[in-house]
Amino acid sequence: MNQNIKDINKVVIIGGIHGNELIGVYLIRLFEEFPHLIKRQSFETLTLLGNPQAVALCRRYIDKDLNRCFSNEDIQNPTPSSYEDKQAKQIHKTLDLKNQSQIRMFVDLHSTTTNMGITLILVKLHPLLLRLAAYLSSINSEVKVIYMPSYPENGFLISQCELGLALEVGAIPQGVLNADLFQQTQEIVCRILDYIEALNQGLIKLNKSALTFYEYVEAVDYPKNEHGEIKAMVHPQLQFKDYEPLNPGDPIFLNFEGKTITYKGESTIFPIFINEAAYYEKGIAMCFTKKQKIII
Amino acid sequence: MNQNIKDINKVVIIGGIHGNELIGVYLIRLFEEFPHLIKRQSFETLTLLGNPQAVALCRRYIDKDLNRCFSNEDIQNPTPSSYEDKQAKQIHKTLDLKNQSQIRMFVDLHSTTTNMGITLILVKLHPLLLRLAAYLSSINSEVKVIYMPSYPENGFLISQCELGLALEVGAIPQGVLNADLFQQTQEIVCRILDYIEALNQGLIKLNKSALTFYEYVEAVDYPKNEHGEIKAMVHPQLQFKDYEPLNPGDPIFLNFEGKTITYKGESTIFPIFINEAAYYEKGIAMCFTKKQKIII
Repeated sequence: MNQNIKDINKVVIIGGIHGNELIGVYLIRLFEEFPHLIKRQSFETLTLLGNPQAVALCRRYIDKDLNRCFSNEDIQNPTPSSYEDKQAKQIHKTLDLKNQSQIRMFVDLHSTTTNMGITLILVKLHPLLLRLAAYLSSINSEVKVIYMPSYPENGFLISQCELGLALEVGAIPQGVLNADLFQQTQEIVCRILDYIEALNQGLIKLNKSALTFYEYVEAVDYPKNEHGEIKAMVHPQLQFKDYEPLNPGDPIFLNFEGKTITYKGESTIFPIFINEAAYYEKGIAMCFTKKQKIII
Repeated sequence: MNQNIKDINKVVIIGGIHGNELIGVYLIRLFEEFPHLIKRQSFETLTLLGNPQAVALCRRYIDKDLNRCFSNEDIQNPTPSSYEDKQAKQIHKTLDLKNQSQIRMFVDLHSTTTNMGITLILVKLHPLLLRLAAYLSSINSEVKVIYMPSYPENGFLISQCELGLALEVGAIPQGVLNADLFQQTQEIVCRILDYIEALNQGLIKLNKSALTFYEYVEAVDYPKNEHGEIKAMVHPQLQFKDYEPLNPGDPIFLNFEGKTITYKGESTIFPIFINEAAYYEKGIAMCFTKKQKIII
């Protein structure tokens, strides 16, 4: 693998793209106060607080979701109007992303109200990211890996980087710190930096390894009435069961009158992002994935 | 007891005083769609959605916390300026609270990111409320009771009512429904209505009973730096341990560098509201209570 990729010059750790996801926000502050925690010899490590105005108000965003503002079209828009569109252009400029001479990695820190533990989100199946994911899974069996194919029009921050990954940790409410998850996230970030350091130094052995990951299939909406209001909740038997198999006929929703609604699909599926607070405004109850295994 | 209090004429169920506490919001919608669920023979049941603008935006409030706007001074202010001050006056008028001829009960539905299960909050130790609390504890051992003495200047909605109580359910993130807690809250509300119905009909036997409750002592701030920024998180050993004893020397906070801070008090105390999202802006980490038992 090392033959196929040049040394990584720069790792950018990003927190606070969503202003009410506090673990990322406070980790960035910690790393800025104690830069030795993230300093390595073979590359530069940068930190970035994504959405300072939203952080100050402890809200996901001011005008719109910043993590949907990084499409090429958005970035090239000469007259951005919303705060987040301006901020996305500013981040693009600050990180000098036009400059293609550097090999960068992005580690974008998020948290979730769903029970997704420590999840790595990949938007590209780059061999280096797959190896890194396999390594992190091997040292911490709690680590799960999602593959969410990203298209330029999605506008995710990490889709701006060939080696972009996001960390999604939970379950944790918005606007709250959880010391245990804070420390686990810090540990994973440091392990990523150590891995890149070892990779740059040619110390990574390329033994074959297996990686299980969950590939995004579709977003699943809440049942709604004619006014678009949700008419049911995630079923108690499904709540907190992210990454567990959901079989045809299994309970999926419970309506407000107490009636169970079952999963009508024809095959087993693996739901994630079950009951994410930030997705209520989109009407999304969860995402379905299929479980995959590859040898890398 | 029945000799000391006239029949209750009206029970008001309130949800959405905080717009991002969805269990109360959706229970009010359910009760308004299916009024038979809360209709009883001997009294009138009303529903009220406290802060519709905050509900629409899924925020705790627009300008300020509505549940601090019900002091007598606020209510009598002829020129309220904030949305919530105006809303508090409007609620006071809608519920005709100047009219002292009616015996009312308020049941104010809240939720919390803390692990407080099903908690009844009393602001007055009225004998009827104590009996009701003892009854609810007896039918559901998960029910806990807090006594939080209220002074007119606190501005709680329920302090406007001789028979006011709040329900606080958790742990649940802001902006999220949890079907299990939704159903438990609905069950408690219906049991309260059934109890009042039986009381009005003279069917409640006044046997002596014991009640354990937790009396509010003080709010406990996060450790902060000179800029007022928090410098530590709730310790993992204390997280989710609401209502459990905290002894001198026990871990209470963990700072961001990973150092444990212990509880320096001289006696055992019972923390509640441990790591409540809504209290970060106030800098409050938890509240201390003392455990009490009375015979009623």
